[in-house]
Amino acid sequence: MRRFFVLLVFSLLVHLSQGQSKVVVYQTDFGLKDGAVSEMKGVAIGVSPDLKLFDLTHEIPAFNIWEAAYRLRQTVPYWPAGTVFVSVVDPGVGTERRSVVLKTRTGQFIVTPDNGTLTLVAETLGIAEIREIDENVNRRKGSQESYTFHGRDVYSYTGARLAAGVITFEQVGPLLPRQEVVSIPYQKAVLEGKVIKGTIPVLDVQYGNIWTNIPGDLFAQLKPAFGDQLHVKVLHQGKSVYEGDMPYSATFGAVAKGKPLVYLNSLLQLSFALNQGSFAAEHKISSGNDWSVEVSKK
Amino acid sequence: MRRFFVLLVFSLLVHLSQGQSKVVVYQTDFGLKDGAVSEMKGVAIGVSPDLKLFDLTHEIPAFNIWEAAYRLRQTVPYWPAGTVFVSVVDPGVGTERRSVVLKTRTGQFIVTPDNGTLTLVAETLGIAEIREIDENVNRRKGSQESYTFHGRDVYSYTGARLAAGVITFEQVGPLLPRQEVVSIPYQKAVLEGKVIKGTIPVLDVQYGNIWTNIPGDLFAQLKPAFGDQLHVKVLHQGKSVYEGDMPYSATFGAVAKGKPLVYLNSLLQLSFALNQGSFAAEHKISSGNDWSVEVSKK
Amino acid sequence: MRRFFVLLVFSLLVHLSQGQSKVVVYQTDFGLKDGAVSEMKGVAIGVSPDLKLFDLTHEIPAFNIWEAAYRLRQTVPYWPAGTVFVSVVDPGVGTERRSVVLKTRTGQFIVTPDNGTLTLVAETLGIAEIREIDENVNRRKGSQESYTFHGRDVYSYTGARLAAGVITFEQVGPLLPRQEVVSIPYQKAVLEGKVIKGTIPVLDVQYGNIWTNIPGDLFAQLKPAFGDQLHVKVLHQGKSVYEGDMPYSATFGAVAKGKPLVYLNSLLQLSFALNQGSFAAEHKISSGNDWSVEVSKK
Repeated sequence: MRRFFVLLVFSLLVHLSQGQSKVVVYQTDFGLKDGAVSEMKGVAIGVSPDLKLFDLTHEIPAFNIWEAAYRLRQTVPYWPAGTVFVSVVDPGVGTERRSVVLKTRTGQFIVTPDNGTLTLVAETLGIAEIREIDENVNRRKGSQESYTFHGRDVYSYTGARLAAGVITFEQVGPLLPRQEVVSIPYQKAVLEGKVIKGTIPVLDVQYGNIWTNIPGDLFAQLKPAFGDQLHVKVLHQGKSVYEGDMPYSATFGAVAKGKPLVYLNSLLQLSFALNQGSFAAEHKISSGNDWSVEVSKK
Repeated sequence: MRRFFVLLVFSLLVHLSQGQSKVVVYQTDFGLKDGAVSEMKGVAIGVSPDLKLFDLTHEIPAFNIWEAAYRLRQTVPYWPAGTVFVSVVDPGVGTERRSVVLKTRTGQFIVTPDNGTLTLVAETLGIAEIREIDENVNRRKGSQESYTFHGRDVYSYTGARLAAGVITFEQVGPLLPRQEVVSIPYQKAVLEGKVIKGTIPVLDVQYGNIWTNIPGDLFAQLKPAFGDQLHVKVLHQGKSVYEGDMPYSATFGAVAKGKPLVYLNSLLQLSFALNQGSFAAEHKISSGNDWSVEVSKK
Repeated sequence: MRRFFVLLVFSLLVHLSQGQSKVVVYQTDFGLKDGAVSEMKGVAIGVSPDLKLFDLTHEIPAFNIWEAAYRLRQTVPYWPAGTVFVSVVDPGVGTERRSVVLKTRTGQFIVTPDNGTLTLVAETLGIAEIREIDENVNRRKGSQESYTFHGRDVYSYTGARLAAGVITFEQVGPLLPRQEVVSIPYQKAVLEGKVIKGTIPVLDVQYGNIWTNIPGDLFAQLKPAFGDQLHVKVLHQGKSVYEGDMPYSATFGAVAKGKPLVYLNSLLQLSFALNQGSFAAEHKISSGNDWSVEVSKK
């Protein structure tokens, strides 16, 4: 009888441990043409075959920390608390940048070099705690001779152990002072008189839509209604690249094919598009801190 | 004793629920360079961490509903009954196109805007039932302000809930009249005298092979044997682009490197290839309704 | 009481079977633009919905068996024993090349056409056993009419059955004589006097770094210290393409942006890079048997 009880409790414990989400989401600038991402995942499955591994993207342009920061800010909020992100855009691999795990106020974890990758997520989701990875314990055995693939030997290994419950968050390493992440400076959106000024942090690359950093609630101060004409300027290093009028629309289909519109994107930030066309390609517009926009009501 | 029984029944129920396949397969035209696909998957894992998420492709050319339809027709039959496909090629996002879930006669589900995406799957696998998604219940909480990402807020959310057993198929929404899917018109393959005429619905893009819509059983009416020479014409808008002779072959290796052959592709439809070369690039051939082919025995 | 015992044993057996890793890792030259990879995975999930499916890469250049061999050698060691790799780069599909499953000495399985794909893994990990796939039993039912997609009908089907425990390794088919894999000949690295000569088996494609086949322990015979200047030559078909001096470095950041360095890559083989630049693009260097390198200490 007692043996039965022990077995049953064991059986239920196995169930309970299976009830953890055990989810790891990867982001890198490695591309998918070679074996690097697969090496990282192999290390994780070696930690625990129960882990569920997903990809954010591996097509971050090489060394583009800003875009890595943006893609985290874009996606982390849609994953449940407990999800572990491993983000490796690491031009300084092997140098003295810190390796950290940030826990957001909403409960997701991000394992990454602290090189600016956390700029936007720290701001939008907030920092619950940051810990520095103690590589004396959180580094793959036998990897000490390799200096150039911390993505595999430190970040994936640590993220996998954290997600699998092999280590607790505390066992990652020592706690760092609050909000001490390396941040990339950038221009925030502002309302100046009747004109909103902002930047183009990133393109909606697949379709060529222009995503600005103007939040919907700032835009709301212009009291726009669907159908209102807006005057839009796009500038590169302060020089006008595009200037035109277009309606504020709820859907792309509200304008004819090829015509421009202003809309709130899936992150509720102001964006410009051509219905079924590429605004970016048509007007040779790119993204980054030297691209700015101005929007006003006609 | 009774408590043991309760625990045991609970334990077995957990097993049984784990026995469901809980599989979701995604197809979009979003590409993998940004965070859109990951947002969709995060929403699904938020519904249930037990879901198993796969990709058909995210490289459907932007807005190309026909190719989305073709890729479903190509792959759905190879997945088990109960698999839930979420297909989002949705140029009309936010407009009045219907959002539906189709159940095939073979038991797979497809969650998609009803914009032509279901054209071929409805034809080849048959329609068991179609339901319109009731967005009052089957839409992610807090997503009402976003009009442009139904892939995340409606389709992935509904597909995940269906696959996880959170809702039944009935709870997707009201039943629609049978076979009422939006269909893209296209030319079927026909035998005229001794010539078979068909179209090029899609290319085998990776290798440049030409896939026609001529089924193997129609081709069989020419009574071909391996090694028989066939006369092949390819026309664009009725104008000849290629004309030549090539053998009907079981394998690519049956002809010399670079030489043409006719074969039945993995969907058992007539195809043309160059052994280890690109027929499409060599002869500048593309796919779509204005590309047609004629095949006859020499 | 006895019924309870039976149920409990059943319950624990289910747990134990869930304790298997059930991992399949796919590599192909199919690309991800069409449905081919998804057909393969659908077949696997049809074998068992408990399988965990991963991707090594699907971007092997079309028909490039050598690169397939290299990517296996690069990644297989990082996956745990019991992992089943399915590698399909198969220009000879349907011809008389053998279909095999190799078990490495470290316990991973590789399901592949025996066309050279196993060259490097057989050498570095060793062969425990090779079995020829008996297609009379290990072929998807109803697939006999299709000659051109063994990746789906034979390799994925067999790999899935092996990983899921539906068949044992013995049931794959008859044992082949040890070490009888088809091997692609290639030049090994050698020390000649004070110069090490090697080849460029593959590029680190995403960043344009040059990966050689010179192992770290051969390089160690030059007794290099970090900071030592090395003289590097790159030759194409014996003709010099690049010649220059650069330091041996632990990290990319040890040299200024754009400057060259020598380092040990993540496989501990000698490599050349520009810090945050592309050595390959800058000096028009590619990979393959007709590319060679010479390295000596200044």
